[in-house]
Amino acid sequence: MKISLPQISTRKFSIPPPAVLAATYAILIITGTCLLKLPDVSQPLTWSDALFTATSAVTVTGLSVVDVGSHFTLFGQIVVLVLIQLGGLGLMTFAALVLSVLGLPIDIPHRTYLREDLNQTSVGDLLQLVKIILRVVLLCELIGAILLCFVFIPDAGWAEGIWLALFHAVSAFNNAGFSLFPDSLTRYATNPIINLTIPGLLLLGGVGFSVLSDLYYVRRWQKFSLHSKLMLTGSAALIIWSVFSFAALEWNNPATLGHIPGIFDKLQVSWFQGTTTRTAGFNTTNIAGMHDSTTLIFILLMLIGGGSTSTAGGIKVTTFIVLLLATLAFFKRRQQLHAFGRSIGLEEVLKVLALTMISMLVVAMSLFLLTIAHDGDFLDMLFEVASAFGTVGLSRGITPELNDLGRAVIIFTMFVGRVGPLTLGFFLATRVPPRIRYPSSHVYLG
Amino acid sequence: MKISLPQISTRKFSIPPPAVLAATYAILIITGTCLLKLPDVSQPLTWSDALFTATSAVTVTGLSVVDVGSHFTLFGQIVVLVLIQLGGLGLMTFAALVLSVLGLPIDIPHRTYLREDLNQTSVGDLLQLVKIILRVVLLCELIGAILLCFVFIPDAGWAEGIWLALFHAVSAFNNAGFSLFPDSLTRYATNPIINLTIPGLLLLGGVGFSVLSDLYYVRRWQKFSLHSKLMLTGSAALIIWSVFSFAALEWNNPATLGHIPGIFDKLQVSWFQGTTTRTAGFNTTNIAGMHDSTTLIFILLMLIGGGSTSTAGGIKVTTFIVLLLATLAFFKRRQQLHAFGRSIGLEEVLKVLALTMISMLVVAMSLFLLTIAHDGDFLDMLFEVASAFGTVGLSRGITPELNDLGRAVIIFTMFVGRVGPLTLGFFLATRVPPRIRYPSSHVYLG
Ligand SMILES: [K+]
Ligand SMILES: [K+]
Repeated sequence: MKISLPQISTRKFSIPPPAVLAATYAILIITGTCLLKLPDVSQPLTWSDALFTATSAVTVTGLSVVDVGSHFTLFGQIVVLVLIQLGGLGLMTFAALVLSVLGLPIDIPHRTYLREDLNQTSVGDLLQLVKIILRVVLLCELIGAILLCFVFIPDAGWAEGIWLALFHAVSAFNNAGFSLFPDSLTRYATNPIINLTIPGLLLLGGVGFSVLSDLYYVRRWQKFSLHSKLMLTGSAALIIWSVFSFAALEWNNPATLGHIPGIFDKLQVSWFQGTTTRTAGFNTTNIAGMHDSTTLIFILLMLIGGGSTSTAGGIKVTTFIVLLLATLAFFKRRQQLHAFGRSIGLEEVLKVLALTMISMLVVAMSLFLLTIAHDGDFLDMLFEVASAFGTVGLSRGITPELNDLGRAVIIFTMFVGRVGPLTLGFFLATRVPPRIRYPSSHVYLG
Repeated sequence: MKISLPQISTRKFSIPPPAVLAATYAILIITGTCLLKLPDVSQPLTWSDALFTATSAVTVTGLSVVDVGSHFTLFGQIVVLVLIQLGGLGLMTFAALVLSVLGLPIDIPHRTYLREDLNQTSVGDLLQLVKIILRVVLLCELIGAILLCFVFIPDAGWAEGIWLALFHAVSAFNNAGFSLFPDSLTRYATNPIINLTIPGLLLLGGVGFSVLSDLYYVRRWQKFSLHSKLMLTGSAALIIWSVFSFAALEWNNPATLGHIPGIFDKLQVSWFQGTTTRTAGFNTTNIAGMHDSTTLIFILLMLIGGGSTSTAGGIKVTTFIVLLLATLAFFKRRQQLHAFGRSIGLEEVLKVLALTMISMLVVAMSLFLLTIAHDGDFLDMLFEVASAFGTVGLSRGITPELNDLGRAVIIFTMFVGRVGPLTLGFFLATRVPPRIRYPSSHVYLG
């Protein structure tokens, strides 16, 4: 992340910022791969294993070809955690920068340093922004780790317990989904502290820096930006919907909720999966055992993802809301969308649709390549690709079975899923007006 | 179809045209269902069988829960064929009408009867339009039937042979995909007459009335409408792409092309599947035996479909081209799309994106319901839903296995796939300008 700072702060862009982001991630991934190949980092690890793990960590996805908890030494686990932290931090910082290009208000004191034009942003301003983001991130992770200590220290003793707490807090806040347990957090499926702390961290990390700054500095709903309002109501609605549909569809499925005796515990698991599926990658239930219908909903949730300027992936909650509003406006035969007394222009809708279509294209292409590379169940492959694109990290179990081509596809999808939407967002924010105008014509649809 | 005429020609719309179309189709389906339940029409047939067959025929889909050739008497087969013909004709007529609302030029002599406003269309004008369409349809079907006689009469004798030729010609021109053979046209996989006549009829029926009228009356490429140019180049590109990818992916698959000895015959089968998959529903290869990768391409092709004002389904070729152009323009950072020296406006792109998104939504919803109703392979279900939505009629074999809920989902999907895109097209053509303007705001994406 630090590598990108001098580039971005130059007066004129010699390199476009998305290229800087992509290059930063690529360098982080390559460095991480080499670090993981050091001696005493893990049990035997191929270059392909190391590259996959590093990509998954830097893109905060969480898909894994090896069991991180048992395969890596403490040093190896630290490398993974540092990669996660750098990946997550870099993303939040870069997104906040792109955001300032878009002119979206980020309400923090001394906001002068977030100008509408990146060219005017000085190195000092950038450092200040990074400082604020760092402070928020470390505070959240510390509180999360302390809470998790109450679970892990009694189970694993002081040293091991503190490390488990720290690892899972960082992994959760960065929406990375890496766990040191081979079955993710399934063994804590009915533990109330886990069910509050982990989703809490995920939501804080996944709602986005701009919303956090509204919540912290503005505080009054009336004065929140449209983005924050949409993001908060949208996330709440998605959580309610996903918790409810998971519970409804899986209540009697013996592979998931069926074997859990109490109603409260079933609801706890539903709550956890409902809140975490969009981007987290943690699970407290058997993902491969879910019905096809639930799996389909999970795929949709993973593609939607979290909030902008957050550590979450996907097309983003606001994009999804604008899609829904556009569909609604369409059926009401309106050309404008309204939300919270503000309109969203046609131009904005077009951006949302373009982003969505290109994302679908990437998912379809990756899926096609994976069907060629891997001979397995189609739904499992679709799930894996959606998980990689949304940088979610859930899997129906095929990750370790992938051959090198299959791994390459997933690595590519994770990378594009991480860098792609931000790049598109930047492209969309800085469009060049057309030079030549042709006579207009139209084409029949439907 | 005739039922709709008086409604459409009234001065003011008491009923919106899409509702008339939907009602017409519903009445045709109900009538067809009752006719198929008459005695001496078939071997025992449940109401659910009859409804499914009638819907599949009227929507010119071709999915079938029974084997039409062996299950129905001659009278039953005639009922199916009449339903196909009425469904196909009604569609072309209605689409041509909607088209005139959109102001797209249909170049035929005395074109005064196609005004920009449906309100000005008189009953006389409509009848003239229907007459022209009827003439084109019957001529094509007659020529097709005569050509097919050269295959079927030697195989099945005069009476049976002529009926087979007629049935398949009508089914092909209307892109219905119903066949009197249980294995569709697989037994004629390497017959050159079949491989020329059937795709020929399908393409003529599937390219759309507006393009046909350009081809017949205008003749000079330079003077073709933008729609016709896009449609012809787009279809050609899609055919080349699909023939090539089918051949490349399936060449050595023993279940499909692998067991066919000669290169020419392999290419014949590839040509047939490449040209017919987008909307036809005929097959000369084992659809269930295809690789997952080919299946995925077929699903895409089925969702794309054929041309507007044709008997084909799907989101339509022009919609797909505009999607591609929009993506391209996006990466070139242009706000306008250009094709053949004409521009396609932002407004038009928005319509295309809206149509595509809503179509994806319908497919996803139907698939979700089918996963609840039916316990089978996920890819087979996705294929079935795409086939129903694109009114294609190909299946990986699960159609007869569906329970009543599953059948209901597919019936609904076929109906929406048939009526939906036209309805959306009409809505998009007649948008109401917004009355209240809110202060504008924007939302961050990516
Ligand atoms: K993740
Ligand atoms: K069809």
